[in-house]
Amino acid sequence: MSARILDGKSVANAVLEEIGDEVTAAAAARPPSLAAVLVGDDPASRVYVRNKMKACDRCGIGSRLEQLPASASDAQVAEVLQRLNADDEVDGILLQLPLPAGIDSDALLRLLDPTKDVDGLHPVNLGKLVADDSSGFVPCTPAGIVELLRRYEIDLAGRRAVILGRSNLVGKPLALLLLRRAAVGNATVTVLHTRSRDIPERIREAEVVVAAAGSARFVQGAWLQPGATVIDVGIHRLPGGESGRARLVGDVDFAQAVEVAGAITPVPGGVGPMTVAMLMRNTALAWRRKRLA
Amino acid sequence: MSARILDGKSVANAVLEEIGDEVTAAAAARPPSLAAVLVGDDPASRVYVRNKMKACDRCGIGSRLEQLPASASDAQVAEVLQRLNADDEVDGILLQLPLPAGIDSDALLRLLDPTKDVDGLHPVNLGKLVADDSSGFVPCTPAGIVELLRRYEIDLAGRRAVILGRSNLVGKPLALLLLRRAAVGNATVTVLHTRSRDIPERIREAEVVVAAAGSARFVQGAWLQPGATVIDVGIHRLPGGESGRARLVGDVDFAQAVEVAGAITPVPGGVGPMTVAMLMRNTALAWRRKRLA
Repeated sequence: MSARILDGKSVANAVLEEIGDEVTAAAAARPPSLAAVLVGDDPASRVYVRNKMKACDRCGIGSRLEQLPASASDAQVAEVLQRLNADDEVDGILLQLPLPAGIDSDALLRLLDPTKDVDGLHPVNLGKLVADDSSGFVPCTPAGIVELLRRYEIDLAGRRAVILGRSNLVGKPLALLLLRRAAVGNATVTVLHTRSRDIPERIREAEVVVAAAGSARFVQGAWLQPGATVIDVGIHRLPGGESGRARLVGDVDFAQAVEVAGAITPVPGGVGPMTVAMLMRNTALAWRRKRLA
Repeated sequence: MSARILDGKSVANAVLEEIGDEVTAAAAARPPSLAAVLVGDDPASRVYVRNKMKACDRCGIGSRLEQLPASASDAQVAEVLQRLNADDEVDGILLQLPLPAGIDSDALLRLLDPTKDVDGLHPVNLGKLVADDSSGFVPCTPAGIVELLRRYEIDLAGRRAVILGRSNLVGKPLALLLLRRAAVGNATVTVLHTRSRDIPERIREAEVVVAAAGSARFVQGAWLQPGATVIDVGIHRLPGGESGRARLVGDVDFAQAVEVAGAITPVPGGVGPMTVAMLMRNTALAWRRKRLA
């Protein structure tokens, strides 16, 4: 038996279409706009930013790119962010992470206008997640996972969800989301990390497993409970085999897991496109809030 | 065998003494000061505020009480908070919760100057907890639990901690704290709540149990793993027996649990005094930060 594939790519496309429809319907108004800030020339970051700008195009969101050299100072990045904060034509600001070594990302994130922080990483927005206050923005990867579970009608209430990874970007905010009294929520949530003991046994206890370990093909098929839902947040580039082409894999050994799980996200085409779609949704939300304010 | 008693009262006293020493040593400077805002006449809230002001006296922190009638409007409470925000002689502001029905606590908490929010409930401070940014304030009850575990040298690294309760004040912030890469941290953390299944079995898996269920004597001794550390956050007033005096009990059946656990907090005299001590520590921290700024 093979698991149902949770097709993040097609769900993401549906989300982009819905946003496109809303933007078209509000034709009289200025369309939403996103400003992406890219510092340095990390090739992966360039690809991510380009994908996000393509998604903007696809749903009628205007976008602009602010590029700074890897040698930029904290003050220079801060100046760009403050200019974008002050610009009424900019609804959302995306500071692409990671920033070059030596730049204080946390201090820069705190400079963002929280009402334009469409990545949901300003402390005010993370705090609203703890306080169950829906006036903020939810970080895009955790929001994308919740949206994927929602569209596939995977019920979490009372079920055991295990999150592997305690990062600020994924593990911790996702734990808060899955605990909420909400349609996709009410789970019994456990967070595992590098210091956790007996990780295979803990994963086997879970009806929903979210792998955000940052380690290629870490989660083995034999660790899974038969029928579990498996969400793979990882993305790793492995050197090519005979064909010579690089291969993308996740934090889960997909070939093994697909035989045991009840449902699983592929890599690529699972969580990745959902993350981008949620950035679009947050940008549209920022734009809508500004119009209604 | 009977569990070791984690004596919150005497640890809290030690914390207050340390604060008192620091305040005395800084004799030249204005001592720290806390402003408590009490709206309405809930008897429990009056007792809590009085206890907090007594603790201020004991460690040399100045305190003042701002009282408003139960009929006060949101705007009237807001005005008091904004006056205290602007007052340079006030280091910490405590808005005693719960507020009377109809008042929007969340909106009022958001008005607090985050640098004076010594209860740690402003979204910025909750968000700093998610982001592992130590420049904020940690909510007092979770901070008190961590401090108690620290002083009793109870190691959590790699151990399973189960938190019963997902409140914004205790369960969620405590989960974030116990996950941190910190001396009292690195635990495998599970959060249970009213929608969780098989609560007794889940509690039995834990080496550390934190009961913040809001239900008197909910946790039974038979649910515990022998040797577990049990932290009881609850406080409930039961009608008196033959003696006629009311009795305080926690969320744990203490008489049963003390025979199974390795260590346990009593009620009263466990988490309660630690919560007050952490409010003092946060107030002293706000004062110190202002002097160093």
